Amino acid sequence: MGVRNAFYAQSGGVTAVINASACGLIEAAREHPEAIGTVYAGRNGIIGALQEDLIDTACADAATVAALRHTPGGAFGSCRYKLKSLEQDKLKYERLLEVFRAHDIGYFFYNGGNDSMDTAHKVAQLAAASGYPLACVGIPKTVDNDLVGTDNCPGFGSVAKYVATSMREAMYDVAAMASTSTRVFVMEAMGRHAGWITAACGLAAPADGPLLLLLPEIVFDAQKFLSRVNTTVKEHGYCAVAVSEGLRNAEGQLMGEAGSRDAFGHAQLGGVGSQIAQLVKAELNYKVHWALPDYLQRSARHLASRTDAEQAHAVGRAALEFALAGHSAVMAGIERLSDAPYSWRIAAVPLGDVANREKMMPPEFIGADGYTITDACRRYLQPLVEGEDYPPYAQGLPAYVRVTAPAVAQRLPAFRA
Amino acid sequence: MGVRNAFYAQSGGVTAVINASACGLIEAAREHPEAIGTVYAGRNGIIGALQEDLIDTACADAATVAALRHTPGGAFGSCRYKLKSLEQDKLKYERLLEVFRAHDIGYFFYNGGNDSMDTAHKVAQLAAASGYPLACVGIPKTVDNDLVGTDNCPGFGSVAKYVATSMREAMYDVAAMASTSTRVFVMEAMGRHAGWITAACGLAAPADGPLLLLLPEIVFDAQKFLSRVNTTVKEHGYCAVAVSEGLRNAEGQLMGEAGSRDAFGHAQLGGVGSQIAQLVKAELNYKVHWALPDYLQRSARHLASRTDAEQAHAVGRAALEFALAGHSAVMAGIERLSDAPYSWRIAAVPLGDVANREKMMPPEFIGADGYTITDACRRYLQPLVEGEDYPPYAQGLPAYVRVTAPAVAQRLPAFRA
Repeated sequence: MGVRNAFYAQSGGVTAVINASACGLIEAAREHPEAIGTVYAGRNGIIGALQEDLIDTACADAATVAALRHTPGGAFGSCRYKLKSLEQDKLKYERLLEVFRAHDIGYFFYNGGNDSMDTAHKVAQLAAASGYPLACVGIPKTVDNDLVGTDNCPGFGSVAKYVATSMREAMYDVAAMASTSTRVFVMEAMGRHAGWITAACGLAAPADGPLLLLLPEIVFDAQKFLSRVNTTVKEHGYCAVAVSEGLRNAEGQLMGEAGSRDAFGHAQLGGVGSQIAQLVKAELNYKVHWALPDYLQRSARHLASRTDAEQAHAVGRAALEFALAGHSAVMAGIERLSDAPYSWRIAAVPLGDVANREKMMPPEFIGADGYTITDACRRYLQPLVEGEDYPPYAQGLPAYVRVTAPAVAQRLPAFRA
Repeated sequence: MGVRNAFYAQSGGVTAVINASACGLIEAAREHPEAIGTVYAGRNGIIGALQEDLIDTACADAATVAALRHTPGGAFGSCRYKLKSLEQDKLKYERLLEVFRAHDIGYFFYNGGNDSMDTAHKVAQLAAASGYPLACVGIPKTVDNDLVGTDNCPGFGSVAKYVATSMREAMYDVAAMASTSTRVFVMEAMGRHAGWITAACGLAAPADGPLLLLLPEIVFDAQKFLSRVNTTVKEHGYCAVAVSEGLRNAEGQLMGEAGSRDAFGHAQLGGVGSQIAQLVKAELNYKVHWALPDYLQRSARHLASRTDAEQAHAVGRAALEFALAGHSAVMAGIERLSDAPYSWRIAAVPLGDVANREKMMPPEFIGADGYTITDACRRYLQPLVEGEDYPPYAQGLPAYVRVTAPAVAQRLPAFRA
C-alpha cells in the first residue's frame, strides 16, 4: 500500500498493561518506516476518531514509549462508548472512515474487549464495502478475561496476581488476629458475568484452605454459604471469602445491583462485598472485615504478572505485524501451546469469531462444592500470574510516565452525532 | 543474670513487617546463648502468657526465622486484649509474673502500640515492686504511626508506600477514563485518630494535583469539600479523594461510625468512603467509584518499604540488645538524625514517656486549605516509603512462611481471669 498512517485507540476499562500493548505497537511501527507513516492515537479512544481529536504518537520519544510498558492506565485516554449496529450508527461509522481518509489512515488498531472487537469488525466490513483500503486489527484487553479466541486477555493476569496476592496477605493478617478479632474477611472482586477474577483469588490458598469463592456462575444460596463459613471458622479459626461483583441470587438478580448503567448499558455494580459481610455478621455474629479493591486491582502495575506484561506487549507488536502482512478483520489472540512449562504464540483470529461472544468459566473449573476451583482451573491460571515485572521507582513510588500530547490539526468540519 | 529465658508477644493489629521485628529479636537472641536460653512467644499475644500457651521459637529453624523478615501478619498470633490498670487487673498482672517465674523468663518483649507500651510499663513496675528481675522492653509497631518517642512506627512506612502507590495507580486509571466514565475516585484509608496514613496518600501526586485528602484532624465541611471537588474536576477532568476512616463531622462524630466497639473500647470504623462517594454522586452527579483497601493496606508485604522493613528488623534486634545491656522499661525507638539523606538510629526511650500518649499530625504538616500536605510533611514522609524490599515468589505469588508451633508443656494450673 506504500506508506500509510495508522490509528490506534484504547477502549473500555483500562488495565495495568494496556499501555504495554501501545508500546509494542508503536515500537513495531517505528521499525517499519517503509510502510507506516504517522501512528495516531485517538484521544479518549474511539471518541477521538469521531471528533477528529488525534494524538501524533511521535510526541512520545523512544524512552517515553518504552516507559509505557510499565505504566498503568491508558496513556492516550480510553472511553466507554459503544457503537451500535452499522444501520443504527451509520453516520458514526461513516465519520470514522471520513476521518481515516482525511488522515490517510490505512491501519486501524482497536485495543479493547468484546464490544471493541465488534466495532473493529464492523469498521472492517464498512471499509471493504466502501472500497477504502483499511487493515483492521483488534488487540485484546480486558481484566474480565471473557474474550474468546485468546488463551487469556492481557490485563487479566496482572489482576489475577494482584487479587491472589492480596487475598493471601489478608489471610495471613486475619489468621493472626482471629482469636480475639476478625474471624471472617470478605473481598469483592471485579468481573461482571464471568468469575475469572474471583477464581484467581483461589490461588491464594490450597483447595482445602479457609477460603471460599462466590462465583457469578453459581447461584448464591445464603444458608448453604453461611453453613460453610461456620464450618470453616470452626475448623481453621477464620474464613476468607472472595465474592464476585457479578454474584446473583436465585431470582437471577445481581446481589450488588446499584441501579445505574454505564454507556454500554452494563449495570454498574458494587456493594455485594458489603452485603455478604453484613450477612455473616448478622447471622453468625462473627467479627467481619471487608475490602473493596475496586480500581486498585486493575491498575496495580506495581504487581504486574510478567507473563501478562509480556503478552500485552506481544499482542501490540503482533497486531502491527499482522496488518503489515496483509491481515484484516483479525484479532491478535494468544494461543496456549502447553500449560507447564507455559508456552504460547500469537495467532491471527478472525474478528467474526470473537465479536459479541463471552468466554465463561467452564464448569470443570469450578469445584463440586461451588466454592472452590479445580486443579484444571489452577493449571489454566497458574502460568498467567507467573513472574514479576516491577516498574522502576523514584522517591519510593513507581515512576510512571505521562504522554503530553498536543492535538493534531483538524482537517474536517466538526462532527455532531 | 546468667542464662534466662525470654518472652515475646505481638499485640494489636498486625502489619506487613511486625514479623521482621520478631526475626530481628530471635536472630539477636540466638547470637547470645550465654545470656538467653529459650525465646518463648505468646500464642496470640499476651493472651498466650495469661493462659500459659507458649511457643518455643526454637521450633523455627534459621531459614524460617529469616523468612519471617518478609512475611506479613503475625507469625505467633496477635490479639486485641488490653490490660487495664494495675489495680483493676491485678490478678492478670500477677498471673503474668507467675507464668514468667514458672518458665524462668527474665526478658519481656512486647511488640505493639500505645496500649502495649502501657502494659509493658506496668509489668515492669510490678516486677520491680515484686523484686522479680525482669527486663521489659517495648518494640514499636503500629500502622497508625501514632506512638510518641519514635520517628515513626514500624508498619507505617509500608502502609504509606502501599496507599500512595495505590492512589497513584488509581489516578492513572481514572485520568484515562474520565471523559466518559468515572470522574471522582474515593479511597478510604486506615487511621483512627491521626491522619498519617491519609497524609501518606498525598505522596501520590504533587501538591497542585487533582487529589484531596480528608484528614481526621480537619472537621469535615461538606459544602466546602463539594465545591473543591467540583473545581478540581473542572480543572483536571477528574478528582481523587483519600478519606480517613477517622473523619469527623462538625458535631465531633465519626462519619463512618459503625456502632460497635473492639476489645480496646475503640469504635469499629468503616463506611466513610462510601458516604463520601455517595455525597459526591448525589450533590455533583459525577460518576464515582470508591475503594476500601481495609486489611490489604496493612498486610501488603509485597510492596513493603525497605526503610520500614529495615527499621522493623532493627528495633527487634535493638530491643534484645537493650535488655542485655541492662535496660528495662524502655522502648526501642527510632531517632531521626536527618531527612535527606535519611539517617536514623535506635534509642532506648523510657516507656513512661511513651505510654498512653498519641502522636498526632502537627498542624504545620497540613496545607492551609485543609486538603493537602505541606512540604514539611513530605520531607517527613518521603524517607519512610523509600526503597523496595520484595519478598521471594513461588508460582507467581509471594512465598510467605508459617511457623508450626507445638505448645510448650504447662507448669501451672489453668488461669481464669
